[in-house]
Amino acid sequence: MSDVKRYAAVVEYNGSYFHGWQRQKHHNEPTVQAALEAAISFVANHPVSVFCAGRTDAGVHACRQVIHFDTTSQRSDYGWLMGINTNLPMGVAVQWLGEVEPEFHARFNACGRHYRYIINNAAVKPALLHDQMTWWRYPLDATLMHDAAQALLGEHDFSAFRARDCQANSPVKTMHRVSVRRFGTLLVVELHASAFLYHMVRNILGVLLPIGQSRQPVSWMAEVLASCDRRQAGITAPGEGLYFVGVDYPGEHGIPCQPAGPTLMTPFLDHHGAQ
Amino acid sequence: MSDVKRYAAVVEYNGSYFHGWQRQKHHNEPTVQAALEAAISFVANHPVSVFCAGRTDAGVHACRQVIHFDTTSQRSDYGWLMGINTNLPMGVAVQWLGEVEPEFHARFNACGRHYRYIINNAAVKPALLHDQMTWWRYPLDATLMHDAAQALLGEHDFSAFRARDCQANSPVKTMHRVSVRRFGTLLVVELHASAFLYHMVRNILGVLLPIGQSRQPVSWMAEVLASCDRRQAGITAPGEGLYFVGVDYPGEHGIPCQPAGPTLMTPFLDHHGAQ
Repeated sequence: MSDVKRYAAVVEYNGSYFHGWQRQKHHNEPTVQAALEAAISFVANHPVSVFCAGRTDAGVHACRQVIHFDTTSQRSDYGWLMGINTNLPMGVAVQWLGEVEPEFHARFNACGRHYRYIINNAAVKPALLHDQMTWWRYPLDATLMHDAAQALLGEHDFSAFRARDCQANSPVKTMHRVSVRRFGTLLVVELHASAFLYHMVRNILGVLLPIGQSRQPVSWMAEVLASCDRRQAGITAPGEGLYFVGVDYPGEHGIPCQPAGPTLMTPFLDHHGAQ
Repeated sequence: MSDVKRYAAVVEYNGSYFHGWQRQKHHNEPTVQAALEAAISFVANHPVSVFCAGRTDAGVHACRQVIHFDTTSQRSDYGWLMGINTNLPMGVAVQWLGEVEPEFHARFNACGRHYRYIINNAAVKPALLHDQMTWWRYPLDATLMHDAAQALLGEHDFSAFRARDCQANSPVKTMHRVSVRRFGTLLVVELHASAFLYHMVRNILGVLLPIGQSRQPVSWMAEVLASCDRRQAGITAPGEGLYFVGVDYPGEHGIPCQPAGPTLMTPFLDHHGAQ
């Protein structure tokens, strides 16, 4: 039909409210995709399928997940946004919405993804934000972690950090930037790559954490990467500290490229010249 | 008995998990005091009563609530802290604990309190931290708010900002410092006073918000203050953006004076020279 329009939207969510991104076929647990499809279908008044830039696991948050959907309904952008947000449950909200070309695809057009991992490196467990950062009680050296992480830069076979259930066609990805910085008791790890394999960030953290504790040398990261063997790496770090913070698209789609959903950190990190 | 010891502790909590600080006599809703008394009594192996520096309302958070309690039990500081935290529910955790003189009283010795109010000033509702900041969709001018707030400095009768159920002996308090600053989409209001009346910060915000929207002039704050009449002020702003962030005590009690519980903001605000 000629009156089908494609919309893109920027979505923020608290992963602790959901069992991951993906709609479940045989379970009734809440997922981000199911919540969005229900709300958008209600506003559209017809069934809507939603596609995202990068699926996230249970517990993983997003400041700037990008989605697209098709509709034959006529609504203003403001009408869509307010209508969808009114019908979404706690913990997920659309931050921006706009019409895009019919060829735009949130996942297949994405040429870069940004993740952030936040560690609360304190002796005592936190009460505030306990589900929005990873608590690590053993002292971590951010400089050692930062130095080790630089081994990931460039194009590599990241099989050593790939979880068993990964559905990616290729384990070869390009890491554009990775940094580890300390702000008081917080450690902030930022990663920018062409794409990420399933559990890749959390498995990279599983190698960075022992290096930060000096239980492994800085050189261990390069060794694990070169092995292309998941068994050489470490734990899969918890999901609660992980945020999907941005997506790159080639050309102009009108999608805002600033992180759309403010977390308490975003303005400060920006102030410090980060991403 | 001569073997009674008095302990002070610094406590962090997420107010959205509790119906305020105070133990309830006739209801079974969770409160911070009840949670702490249950956990400490379990570790002490005898009933323990807990006293706090400043009672907080439902939804209000604390980075650094100070409490004290008495016990006849012998435990190491580390044993107390880990034991209590193991027995506390989600959303509340002790950050520091130490023995203090028997005369120390968390509430009566406190000579200053620090509060922080966080506003997410964005057109669209947030998903992350939705219960840890107040969402205000209308644009706010932080400079107007900051200028208006300076009228509060010094010793005043704060009756205009006093809620009906306030149990304070006197409405006269001394405001040492108040600031309103913008960081991206966040507005951060910081208040330091000798003490605060019931709902005082939230009622001050109820005057600051219309000033920030230019619906009232900057001079309105001084007028409301001088009236000593609650009916001249505005709304009671929501509790979810309010944090109890610190207590001052005269002399040396060993209680850490840095904000103990890190929120995502704390290191950045400190970095910017706050409080």
